[in-house]
Amino acid sequence: MPVDAPETVKESSELTPSRLRSKHLLSIEDLSPDEILLILDTAEAMKEIGTRRIKKVPTLRGKTVVNLFFEPSTRTRTSFEIAEKRLSADTLNMAGSTSSMLKGETLVDTARNLEAMSPDIIVLRHAASGACHLMVDGSTARVVNAGDGMHEHPTQALLDAFTIRERKSRFDGLKVTIVGDLVHSRVLRSNIQLLRALGAEICVCGPPTLIPVGVERFGVHATTSVDEAVTDADVVMLLRVQLERMHGHFFPSLREYFSLYGMTSKRMERAKPDAIVMHPGPINRGVEVSSELADGSCSVILEQVANGVAIRMAVLYLLAGVEGDEEVS
Amino acid sequence: MPVDAPETVKESSELTPSRLRSKHLLSIEDLSPDEILLILDTAEAMKEIGTRRIKKVPTLRGKTVVNLFFEPSTRTRTSFEIAEKRLSADTLNMAGSTSSMLKGETLVDTARNLEAMSPDIIVLRHAASGACHLMVDGSTARVVNAGDGMHEHPTQALLDAFTIRERKSRFDGLKVTIVGDLVHSRVLRSNIQLLRALGAEICVCGPPTLIPVGVERFGVHATTSVDEAVTDADVVMLLRVQLERMHGHFFPSLREYFSLYGMTSKRMERAKPDAIVMHPGPINRGVEVSSELADGSCSVILEQVANGVAIRMAVLYLLAGVEGDEEVS
Amino acid sequence: MPVDAPETVKESSELTPSRLRSKHLLSIEDLSPDEILLILDTAEAMKEIGTRRIKKVPTLRGKTVVNLFFEPSTRTRTSFEIAEKRLSADTLNMAGSTSSMLKGETLVDTARNLEAMSPDIIVLRHAASGACHLMVDGSTARVVNAGDGMHEHPTQALLDAFTIRERKSRFDGLKVTIVGDLVHSRVLRSNIQLLRALGAEICVCGPPTLIPVGVERFGVHATTSVDEAVTDADVVMLLRVQLERMHGHFFPSLREYFSLYGMTSKRMERAKPDAIVMHPGPINRGVEVSSELADGSCSVILEQVANGVAIRMAVLYLLAGVEGDEEVS
Repeated sequence: MPVDAPETVKESSELTPSRLRSKHLLSIEDLSPDEILLILDTAEAMKEIGTRRIKKVPTLRGKTVVNLFFEPSTRTRTSFEIAEKRLSADTLNMAGSTSSMLKGETLVDTARNLEAMSPDIIVLRHAASGACHLMVDGSTARVVNAGDGMHEHPTQALLDAFTIRERKSRFDGLKVTIVGDLVHSRVLRSNIQLLRALGAEICVCGPPTLIPVGVERFGVHATTSVDEAVTDADVVMLLRVQLERMHGHFFPSLREYFSLYGMTSKRMERAKPDAIVMHPGPINRGVEVSSELADGSCSVILEQVANGVAIRMAVLYLLAGVEGDEEVS
Repeated sequence: MPVDAPETVKESSELTPSRLRSKHLLSIEDLSPDEILLILDTAEAMKEIGTRRIKKVPTLRGKTVVNLFFEPSTRTRTSFEIAEKRLSADTLNMAGSTSSMLKGETLVDTARNLEAMSPDIIVLRHAASGACHLMVDGSTARVVNAGDGMHEHPTQALLDAFTIRERKSRFDGLKVTIVGDLVHSRVLRSNIQLLRALGAEICVCGPPTLIPVGVERFGVHATTSVDEAVTDADVVMLLRVQLERMHGHFFPSLREYFSLYGMTSKRMERAKPDAIVMHPGPINRGVEVSSELADGSCSVILEQVANGVAIRMAVLYLLAGVEGDEEVS
Repeated sequence: MPVDAPETVKESSELTPSRLRSKHLLSIEDLSPDEILLILDTAEAMKEIGTRRIKKVPTLRGKTVVNLFFEPSTRTRTSFEIAEKRLSADTLNMAGSTSSMLKGETLVDTARNLEAMSPDIIVLRHAASGACHLMVDGSTARVVNAGDGMHEHPTQALLDAFTIRERKSRFDGLKVTIVGDLVHSRVLRSNIQLLRALGAEICVCGPPTLIPVGVERFGVHATTSVDEAVTDADVVMLLRVQLERMHGHFFPSLREYFSLYGMTSKRMERAKPDAIVMHPGPINRGVEVSSELADGSCSVILEQVANGVAIRMAVLYLLAGVEGDEEVS
């Protein structure tokens, strides 16, 4: 029984499993639906902590968390770091550019060396898909995937689900439309797995060059028509046009992208009247979304950011804060 | 009544207003003379904390401070960070170069996103004048301006005033001479407003190309003669020649600058016998000041650095540490 | 008497001197053999702390440690930072690239300015030999040398000695062979002084161009024959080929280096049966050492990393944690 657990966390643990089976969070597909709900319920308690005058609990006091970011990502790193500090963890930041990688060390050696210093948790961001799995191998530290290549970004998918649940109170039968750069998104795969596991119906939409071949096998409907995709949607989730990953020529111009796929209040008229607009950020105004819509009443983009801290607190708490008599596997 | 306020802070609050009217510190001109004195008095108590064996009080325990620096400034960032840690705040550093700005995000979006994560205080340094005002708009966090463009640097002006008061015990009738690059200085404007508000008489001096047109309207005397400027001065405040901002050719050479405007013991002979020499740092030895003078007995340059920590503790304490029953506006 | 000292540290202090004579750790040659043993004994107690569920003691609570790194070194900086956090110190990181040095400030001025902010400990890494001695001059903060140029890296030498003692239980009569780039190593000098002081016999080996002229005057045997050097060795310590320091052409190719001096299981057959292989890291696999040997059972490379945290905790504790009634000189 965790000594420092906030009251509400203890209560929610009576309804769902009280811990995660895995000691790492690498991928949404490792989580059972019950574990996903455990994380979302825990995040609700964590969100309440964020509304207090003193937004801090001693849950991870004395634990060391290393944020090892091989790609710059202010947003994600800051969200994790705030989550860690609210849980009273000691945090260290290691950036790829200042790391031993410059001296030719391999990722595996960096991992083993960091491991040898016995941090309790490693939060890893890396451009290579699967980097987290290399890190985990033989690790006594718990590892959280903070985005690996075009592969997964599980805490983003969890915060998206948390935001949808807050607004819609259910997943079953919900129509979630995902629009944008489906090929380069590390959010897409995590999101499809998670929302499907919870019962949502998913439609993906983008320019033909940005739809992965065979995406339908993930159980989603794919279309190049944004009008069709938005029709009757409960949730419209926009993906970032990642200019920095666009090595080839996937579409003629940003202006043309906006005119064909950019989300506007006009386009949203086809969705359900109470539909919400989501975006993982940072947004490109006038590319994926009009400023008017991004700042409008159906946008939950900033709620996503706020919920991100709560989700990361929940994940860190569940991985490292719950240490009973039996060791988790 | 703050629970964790150090004893001496409570005492000083009986003599002056006990809090600031604004929840932000953006500009010296937002402060009344009484508020300025409140900050200086509070800094005295804070300075005492810095002399203890354990230089730490729990005033901001559980509060999160984000140091958001879009320009590198080791000196200012370190001074704030030490001040924050002495007050037991949790601190996060975000540097412009690793931020989402790389991905095309606007400052306003960066601000709103950071806001959504609910930090308690944001310390902002930005190259654009007025960046702080953008950050403040709709912010629940308190914002401290740590230097914006060529506009303001209020904590520097406050620490300068604190240092002058420590040495001279008064401002009324004091002759303060400011020598150097008046055009590019972000310190000048804050300093003039502050010292004038407290009753000092100000003379500014520099090469003709580095004196702003119409500077006299700020109530100062301007001259290109350094001998005239230094005569009978109580305080000689040197401004940094900011080589990194010198896009044009404002003067022929550093050697010529030193021979015409560089401060030396010889030139200081015209000042009052007990005059002090100040510089916001980092100093260019042999440009704004001779090494002999910078390291000599009338130099208070290192005292300024030490007092900077105390002033920043005072500002952070007054903005965020004093939270009573009534909310500040 | 330190209030928060862990129990075992108090005990070990009965056997050896209880503190260091100097308030800084700049060089191994400043330490007496007794002081070296004090550090190693203290590190044993510190290592035990690292095995606890909560790896944290309040020894340096309220103390501020600045890690001032003018050269990037993830490994060393992270090791110090973890050590500092385990001792509950407040830590600040200052990197050379973001520092005032960009603005032309001298190291001495950076040092004095940092000093004026009254940190308790400065951990300094600098490319210039002797930089630490400049930093120390007039400093009230304690200074720890974290590597200066090609000069010294005392905590690395101490962790190497700690690792050897753990495995061999003695130094007297031990044959330690050091192989590699003897000219550019900042580890070599510290290591020779330390191991000689403790009674080990040292043989150094490398390509003729990488053996310092007159190295024998340090009391070591030098040879270019790796077979001779390894024969009957108890410890084989490999030095990093520092490609980033190889401005000239010291050897034809990395492949040739490996074939002539790279350590392999085959070469290790000439050493004692229970010989250990050490490397300060980061390793260049296939250059100084074969992957098979680096990952094999006689390799203690990762133990060195783990011991590094314990040694740094011990040094920080002994310099700053022990503050009794009498001030150390």
